Amino acid sequence: MARVIVDVMLKPEILDPQGQAIARALPRLGFSGVSAVRQGKRFEVELEGPADEAALEEVRKMAETLLANTVIEDYSVRVEG
Amino acid sequence: MARVIVDVMLKPEILDPQGQAIARALPRLGFSGVSAVRQGKRFEVELEGPADEAALEEVRKMAETLLANTVIEDYSVRVEG
Repeated sequence: MARVIVDVMLKPEILDPQGQAIARALPRLGFSGVSAVRQGKRFEVELEGPADEAALEEVRKMAETLLANTVIEDYSVRVEG
Repeated sequence: MARVIVDVMLKPEILDPQGQAIARALPRLGFSGVSAVRQGKRFEVELEGPADEAALEEVRKMAETLLANTVIEDYSVRVEG
């Protein structure tokens, strides 16, 4: 059994109101030194078998069609560890 | 300028209905070989200065008080790269 991580983030050119809200709240809450925050999603996918190239290709297809909206989001797939 | 990543995931003992819904949808969509999916959040925090130990400690405090609900979520903080 292997764990594959899929990170899904808004494309850099897409405005991220959630991240902006966090960045704006930080100084009010006593945190300084942060210039920007972006919020995205992280998926932990547990595979039944090993994380070989075929399995990773399946996870990439899954990210492309199900986990990410590729019009506005980028994704990355990697084996954990 | 440095980028710090904060990953926030539900604690293992907390039920994750979003992840379960994804895992259940996969076979219907033609994907096999996945035993479980868990969904969490990923934050990209851009620092104004370097990601030294003091800055990372600030980000940890930020995760603890603002980005994660530590009753039900775990977080991890790491420098990107």
